[in-house]
Amino acid sequence: MTEAATVRRSRITPEREAELYAAVLELLREVGYDALTMDAVAARTRSSKATLYRQWGGKAELVVKALRHEKPITSDIDTGSLRGDFHAMVRREDDCHMEQNSALMRGLATALHGNPDLLRAFREWIIEPETEMLREILRRAVDRGEIRADNPAQDYVLHMMIGAFAVRGIVDELPPTQDFLTSYMDAVILPALGA
Amino acid sequence: MTEAATVRRSRITPEREAELYAAVLELLREVGYDALTMDAVAARTRSSKATLYRQWGGKAELVVKALRHEKPITSDIDTGSLRGDFHAMVRREDDCHMEQNSALMRGLATALHGNPDLLRAFREWIIEPETEMLREILRRAVDRGEIRADNPAQDYVLHMMIGAFAVRGIVDELPPTQDFLTSYMDAVILPALGA
Repeated sequence: MTEAATVRRSRITPEREAELYAAVLELLREVGYDALTMDAVAARTRSSKATLYRQWGGKAELVVKALRHEKPITSDIDTGSLRGDFHAMVRREDDCHMEQNSALMRGLATALHGNPDLLRAFREWIIEPETEMLREILRRAVDRGEIRADNPAQDYVLHMMIGAFAVRGIVDELPPTQDFLTSYMDAVILPALGA
Repeated sequence: MTEAATVRRSRITPEREAELYAAVLELLREVGYDALTMDAVAARTRSSKATLYRQWGGKAELVVKALRHEKPITSDIDTGSLRGDFHAMVRREDDCHMEQNSALMRGLATALHGNPDLLRAFREWIIEPETEMLREILRRAVDRGEIRADNPAQDYVLHMMIGAFAVRGIVDELPPTQDFLTSYMDAVILPALGA
């Protein structure tokens, strides 16, 4: 078998990839990160462990890519206003997925601190791209004169967004929703940025 | 034995209470909420389970009171300005305790959602008194003319504060500190309130 054939064989289709990610998130919700094994993922998805390791390297990266797949980080949000861009960010994920992910993120928050591999993958594939996307959105708002270049709240936009998402349940006994996050952005994030 | 003697005997001194709470938080950091048993608390503190149940009713209330003991919710913060009051709130807890509690809160966040008793006690003894204290601080700021009575960010102050505390580690790989929270308040919370 030539090398090209090997590569072709090991490549998976986008549909199959989506199916795998859905199964990983399902397992993650059922048993949590620490109890999740590559064996269980292989069994649930009827794939070989070798394929999983070859495609993703390990559990941490597989889990983080599955998370990222569900909430795509698109660099093409550009509505022409800061408020429009923020609202578009919230609308990337519908309420049903947001509630599911909220439960998932609670479980992951603990795992993140005990698993350096997971924290590294999470930062590389979720936090850094989100930060980059936000930086771009804020840069355009500065260029349009909507916010001042030296506004110190710019450094805290991710804390404000992820923070509100994370504590909604504890503070209000309600799940985070698009409506909640949108009104939080209008009441808190935009005024803090002086927009 | 008269009833009065029984009551006297079952009452514990403030020093003993502080000792008990410290032991509960220590155990909580070691094993987490779900694995924490009243037997373990009794053994660690050399007290009887009967005393623990009589004083606190159960594990959820004992854990929440221990948390609250470490970060007293005082209603007497009144420095004369909103900024002063917010900074005083941050200074209730030093950096060392804040870092310890940050680890603890991560573990509790998951437990809160799976244990209705814990969530109820947490809301009754932590969230509601904090909300009450904040409402009082904001009411005085409105009276002084520092913020407008109808500013919608008032409803989100707790989300902003707890949120920043909760996500600092994931976003920056740094523990929450007094300096971080103080600069977050100055950059985000006060401007969002229009102060």
